[in-house]
Amino acid sequence: MIRILRLGHRVFRDQRISSHCALVARALGAQGFAYSGQRDSNLKDSLKRVAEQWGGPFSVRYVKDWKREIRNFKGMKVHLTVYGLPFQGHISKLKKARNLLVIVGGEKVPPEVYQLSDFNLSVGQQPHSEVGALAVFLYELSGRKFRERFQKVKRKVIPQERGKKTVKRS
Amino acid sequence: MIRILRLGHRVFRDQRISSHCALVARALGAQGFAYSGQRDSNLKDSLKRVAEQWGGPFSVRYVKDWKREIRNFKGMKVHLTVYGLPFQGHISKLKKARNLLVIVGGEKVPPEVYQLSDFNLSVGQQPHSEVGALAVFLYELSGRKFRERFQKVKRKVIPQERGKKTVKRS
Repeated sequence: MIRILRLGHRVFRDQRISSHCALVARALGAQGFAYSGQRDSNLKDSLKRVAEQWGGPFSVRYVKDWKREIRNFKGMKVHLTVYGLPFQGHISKLKKARNLLVIVGGEKVPPEVYQLSDFNLSVGQQPHSEVGALAVFLYELSGRKFRERFQKVKRKVIPQERGKKTVKRS
Repeated sequence: MIRILRLGHRVFRDQRISSHCALVARALGAQGFAYSGQRDSNLKDSLKRVAEQWGGPFSVRYVKDWKREIRNFKGMKVHLTVYGLPFQGHISKLKKARNLLVIVGGEKVPPEVYQLSDFNLSVGQQPHSEVGALAVFLYELSGRKFRERFQKVKRKVIPQERGKKTVKRS
């Protein structure tokens, strides 16, 4: 079970970045997305609509006390940061974890996050995007596959060489 | 040589997403990032600062006529879209291309893009993030490596188990 914790969300500035983090999380095998910072009903609603159309389960949850959230999590805790150790050397170990919390920072990450996490891992050593880093990390973690099992799917893409095709189940 | 073309940039709504696309492009081996839509000097300046500090070359360029840009590009043109064919089956062919243009859509992609591109490829069949899709695509394209060769590097991360360490060259 993979869960994401996105820290320090700001309603105006981060709405799309946090939303992209959640979409990446859902597409690449996470079952839940939690965020701290400012509470944002739009973020929750837009993700809820995605899961209703394209399938779930996928939960979005606001977390007031991120420290307690990390401390109380039963499983392995990985903080993605450009300052950490290269992630690729840790993937096989992480794959064995029953429960994994992937912590994604915001603009300023409090120093405690580095201490509370079991691992601080980097996806490349260059300034980067948390969305991109999360995508590559989850892609490797899931054995370079995309999540295929979704429940209550109402809409599906039918891959095409050119153009768009989706099917709807009413 | 890999170049990115981001379509339909909107100054207020897309600034961070386009900027994240460019950061991902730079970290994962692209030498240049072009965008169409609204001209945005902040986008250009912020990426310029990144390349000045962390190394280049990496160019950011505004494109007024995206159709001409795609048509005139000498090389293979790949459009990333959730509606396309799974990208993984095409990676080995694309690796052989001398010049590659990776086209990343905005909110509404004009139908011509599907026709002007040599390939329309999807990174997963789920609604997703263009930043995440671009990251996974470039990661596979570069043989699951990050770009290591940068010139005129002033700042570098020294990977740490906990905490942050960078070195500066003045």
